[in-house]
Amino acid sequence: MTRFEPRDPAWEARCRAAFDAQPIVRTLGIVMVRLEPGLCEMRLPFNPDFTQQHGFFHAGMVSTLADNAGGFAAYSLMPAGSEVLAVEFKINLMAPARGEVMIARGRVLKPGRTLTITTVEVAMLDGGAEKDVAIMQQTCMALSGGAGDR
Amino acid sequence: MTRFEPRDPAWEARCRAAFDAQPIVRTLGIVMVRLEPGLCEMRLPFNPDFTQQHGFFHAGMVSTLADNAGGFAAYSLMPAGSEVLAVEFKINLMAPARGEVMIARGRVLKPGRTLTITTVEVAMLDGGAEKDVAIMQQTCMALSGGAGDR
Amino acid sequence: MTRFEPRDPAWEARCRAAFDAQPIVRTLGIVMVRLEPGLCEMRLPFNPDFTQQHGFFHAGMVSTLADNAGGFAAYSLMPAGSEVLAVEFKINLMAPARGEVMIARGRVLKPGRTLTITTVEVAMLDGGAEKDVAIMQQTCMALSGGAGDR
Amino acid sequence: MTRFEPRDPAWEARCRAAFDAQPIVRTLGIVMVRLEPGLCEMRLPFNPDFTQQHGFFHAGMVSTLADNAGGFAAYSLMPAGSEVLAVEFKINLMAPARGEVMIARGRVLKPGRTLTITTVEVAMLDGGAEKDVAIMQQTCMALSGGAGDR
Repeated sequence: MTRFEPRDPAWEARCRAAFDAQPIVRTLGIVMVRLEPGLCEMRLPFNPDFTQQHGFFHAGMVSTLADNAGGFAAYSLMPAGSEVLAVEFKINLMAPARGEVMIARGRVLKPGRTLTITTVEVAMLDGGAEKDVAIMQQTCMALSGGAGDR
Repeated sequence: MTRFEPRDPAWEARCRAAFDAQPIVRTLGIVMVRLEPGLCEMRLPFNPDFTQQHGFFHAGMVSTLADNAGGFAAYSLMPAGSEVLAVEFKINLMAPARGEVMIARGRVLKPGRTLTITTVEVAMLDGGAEKDVAIMQQTCMALSGGAGDR
Repeated sequence: MTRFEPRDPAWEARCRAAFDAQPIVRTLGIVMVRLEPGLCEMRLPFNPDFTQQHGFFHAGMVSTLADNAGGFAAYSLMPAGSEVLAVEFKINLMAPARGEVMIARGRVLKPGRTLTITTVEVAMLDGGAEKDVAIMQQTCMALSGGAGDR
Repeated sequence: MTRFEPRDPAWEARCRAAFDAQPIVRTLGIVMVRLEPGLCEMRLPFNPDFTQQHGFFHAGMVSTLADNAGGFAAYSLMPAGSEVLAVEFKINLMAPARGEVMIARGRVLKPGRTLTITTVEVAMLDGGAEKDVAIMQQTCMALSGGAGDR
């Protein structure tokens, strides 16, 4: 796996502040358990309030966690003063998201001046064992002038 | 726009029952406002608890509504006794999801024996005007043997 | 369908010159049959040399034509002096690409300062009738400093 | 990396025969350099006839090689008597496809009864060094009744 050099010495504090500033993170109980340059792992305990008709996490929840993990993997390599924005992603849902905890591991494939490409693996801890649930490919954009300026 | 003939005479009751059986729908307050063969529109009132760090709906919420609308557009054309499963989707986030109500309109592009392709447009009602927010391309699968059997 | 105002008065000459400068266009015989601001249609006559094992156009050929049509729909709205680059796309292959002529119609969904989102419909003329073959969602980038600078 | 057990004892002969039956492979000069259960590597020498306006391989060529490599990684795990069909893919183009030889390495992430998910990494050999060019996520379908029956 490629090792990346952050461009912003304060990358970690910047990422943690932006993560904590997301109301959805507190509402759902998403926890960031690992953050390194180009790498981010997040976890979300299973919650029956956010399931579909078969009792598994809804695909939207899988996307929420994966998009967040990929976005912060990307943001860790962006310059000081930037904002991060996911401009698109594609997700393959490979197995039902059933179990105790959902885990998303995002990592940067290609950092760029404007665009950063990530991949995110999503698994469920189910009876103590990890099972692959989904895979995402995502494009993030570094913004300096606010979220509307793409 | 193509008109489709449902294969299951009881398609509407089947779809409404599956929609109502989703806990996430009640938790978030998603409403299905239109359901026709190959077409589904859903709405979600803005909720600050599900926003990202800039105060807009998180991309995961945009995906949740879009995936749901596309899935039920597809499910309306599936045979009696089937289950619907989104196996993958791709979403482009075109503008911040800010406003009073999010609207997702899914429609079937190609129904198949096993796979059904949909497209979903997502907009926000913002000060009374609709603004495009995202566009999704999605593949749904008709299952007869439970969600694990892909 | 949205009408777009080009930012570059010489948009048409700029697009046609870039299209003609592509060796692959001459090799395959791709023809640009329609070019408007935010819109581009291309055609490719069937060629058995570019088929897969069942005698239909290979999915790579479908992608080649779709990517090109989407890229030029996007490029028509980009500023003078820019280059266009497709940074990602997603394609659903809905039916075999069999027939006499492949047609790709790209149109811009959202033009941006840096990123432009397009959708492309691909059909085959087969015995005189058009049949849907594929649908693409694509992100293009406007570059001023060369193709490596993303 | 996961090791997979092929379901068809004659998987290798079946894959090689289908690969050889593709006219596009001969036309472009695609070579299959590695084939294992769930894994496939293909190579394509640079050819200026298939370039875009900046002299790099067109994105359609990158897609052609990647789709082919992913498809055969998937096909290696499919049952005897099946056909393989790529039903959708998504590709991120990360750097210009410049150099002497394009390399695509496909591997299966999740084999299924009907659908198989793959990821494909594309690189260029450029002055002897490998440079990442693109990444694809792909869904393949096992067919028993011909390519039209999705």
